[in-house]
Amino acid sequence: MSTPEPFSYCLIATDGAARRGELRTPHGMVATPAFMPVGTQATVKGLAPDAVRATGAEIVLANTYHLMLRPGAERIAGLGGLHRFMNWPLPILTDSGGFQVMSLSELRKIEERGVTFRSHLDGAMVELSPERAIEIQHLLGSDIAMQLDECVKLPAARTDLERAMRLSLRWAERSKRAFEHAARAGHALFGIVQGGDDATLRAESARALIDIGFHGYAIGGLAVGESPQVMLQTIAAVAPALPADRPRYLMGVGTPDDLLEAVARGMDMFDCVLPTRNGRHGVAFTRFGPISLKNARHADDPRPLDEQSSCPAARDYSRAYLHHLCKSGEKLGGALLSAINLAYYQELMAGLRAAIAGGRFAEFCAVTKAGWERGDIPSR
Amino acid sequence: MSTPEPFSYCLIATDGAARRGELRTPHGMVATPAFMPVGTQATVKGLAPDAVRATGAEIVLANTYHLMLRPGAERIAGLGGLHRFMNWPLPILTDSGGFQVMSLSELRKIEERGVTFRSHLDGAMVELSPERAIEIQHLLGSDIAMQLDECVKLPAARTDLERAMRLSLRWAERSKRAFEHAARAGHALFGIVQGGDDATLRAESARALIDIGFHGYAIGGLAVGESPQVMLQTIAAVAPALPADRPRYLMGVGTPDDLLEAVARGMDMFDCVLPTRNGRHGVAFTRFGPISLKNARHADDPRPLDEQSSCPAARDYSRAYLHHLCKSGEKLGGALLSAINLAYYQELMAGLRAAIAGGRFAEFCAVTKAGWERGDIPSR
Repeated sequence: MSTPEPFSYCLIATDGAARRGELRTPHGMVATPAFMPVGTQATVKGLAPDAVRATGAEIVLANTYHLMLRPGAERIAGLGGLHRFMNWPLPILTDSGGFQVMSLSELRKIEERGVTFRSHLDGAMVELSPERAIEIQHLLGSDIAMQLDECVKLPAARTDLERAMRLSLRWAERSKRAFEHAARAGHALFGIVQGGDDATLRAESARALIDIGFHGYAIGGLAVGESPQVMLQTIAAVAPALPADRPRYLMGVGTPDDLLEAVARGMDMFDCVLPTRNGRHGVAFTRFGPISLKNARHADDPRPLDEQSSCPAARDYSRAYLHHLCKSGEKLGGALLSAINLAYYQELMAGLRAAIAGGRFAEFCAVTKAGWERGDIPSR
Repeated sequence: MSTPEPFSYCLIATDGAARRGELRTPHGMVATPAFMPVGTQATVKGLAPDAVRATGAEIVLANTYHLMLRPGAERIAGLGGLHRFMNWPLPILTDSGGFQVMSLSELRKIEERGVTFRSHLDGAMVELSPERAIEIQHLLGSDIAMQLDECVKLPAARTDLERAMRLSLRWAERSKRAFEHAARAGHALFGIVQGGDDATLRAESARALIDIGFHGYAIGGLAVGESPQVMLQTIAAVAPALPADRPRYLMGVGTPDDLLEAVARGMDMFDCVLPTRNGRHGVAFTRFGPISLKNARHADDPRPLDEQSSCPAARDYSRAYLHHLCKSGEKLGGALLSAINLAYYQELMAGLRAAIAGGRFAEFCAVTKAGWERGDIPSR
């Protein structure tokens, strides 16, 4: 067997704070800024891997929390790892499970050694430590692993933010040691900056993580209840403090507009359930802004959603048909809109990458936002 | 515009009572024996049209009852017809709506002029007459329309079967007149033999329908509660009474074994929700017989469902992964198994067609049944 390509990040171009780069991973290259579709339970909901790939995605995210509970990390390892299990041959990033422990399990106890929680599936008590989170991610075989952290919902008291940030730092050190001990060639570990909406705590977290040293740095604990303004301020404060030669990942964000604004502030990687979740709920993201296909105005509209889309589903079906599928509760509607939305997100990222490389980032953003503000084309 | 190809049926070969034939329709040829996937609400549940086509299907069935209620036949006509609406360019057969009126609407009144029923969607009272059923199917633009009939659940008293059969015959005459009045070039109308499990009534129904004259003849009122033996006896009695130069359609049947047995008795066309419904419920139809992917024995099985399948989904994913999707309630599981099942049904029909043409029908059936009886390959 050949040695896998080591993980690396190459910064290709900048335009203001916006960065055009490239990740190398054992499963291939990823052009950044990159959007990662979320494959929670080893599947991007409703779409086969070739359909996900057809949207332009080069990397997906999978959730450690869900997979450790079902079907289990050891089982997936025994079946040849997550890439083979879900039939996705391109890069995979796994989160550490921490965020879902906080948001999904009803009962949880956070201690120095880790977190103990009640499984939302069968009520069993499960332990997750920084070391176990790394072990699980190695068993899954993800290209990029995340440290275990504690994510606090906003608004929160400074003492809570500080305590969680410091704990996350100590867990970051233990994650790094566990990762180095396992030493899987080519795989990467990212640290996660915490500290909520407090700039001082965020700065301390970033500095300490850089001292520990990671292949990449994430900003966690955003899109958890704060205003968009606070989110963007935090990104603007943290990103410049991160090393220019490492990728920067904004966790769990966001809308198309959020992505533009975060790229403008120097972020490189994103994941979010919005394109697939909103798709299942009948909402399409388009260059005209979001369009609710459940709206009765589409019932007799023979036009495709967007004949200029890169996605066949946006060109081959009438709005009337998409409306019918959504109103009838047909799963095909959710699948088609999920594909349409993921394709739109990928088109947007491709546009951002080209604009940064061409030194016309501001113009691209202005034109894109003007399209969203103009809204949908009237039907007659 | 060129005149559409007129509807025709060509009998190519026989082997015993089994028939290999070909339908010509305005939207293309259909090799028979043919299985028609069911696209109830203008979608074969969970699958995009290209995925349905990839299973080998050459024709689909759509339900008049569902489409007349939502989105409405006039609306679909305004959008260019059902083929365009659902993005399915190949032939479509529509049923008359009668069967669903009987099975789905809680309140219904059958009179000479037609049936009045309460919509299961919004409670509105709706009328369906033989003439309106034809009008709706013309608005949908289906290649093959069915007469309105009354279908009686078995077991039933002879007087009920007789009354419903005679009413269905009078409705058949009115359907034929309405169809001729509309005179859409190339489109076909099928009559439906009724009479339950009573051979005398079935014979009378068949004779009278032949006197009226249809492009094809269906056997209705089976798979409605009777034993498999009664079903096969009825088919064996009715099929030989139907004209050899017209296609014969067994409505709403059935399992792979039912299809073999019905083809052996001279039937040409079939539709059934089993491959898609059972697929959504975690059951695969295979050359090893049915396999329940929910069964825990698959949890660690790295083997594909059937590496010899024509369907990529049966080759590209492990049984463990399909099991995981089913247990996790992920819609991708239902979609993959629906595709696998439809592909298996189409493989079976292709095998039957080749066997009939090659004069080895009995051998093909014996080998196929032996495979089902042998059961699944043990995992180790």
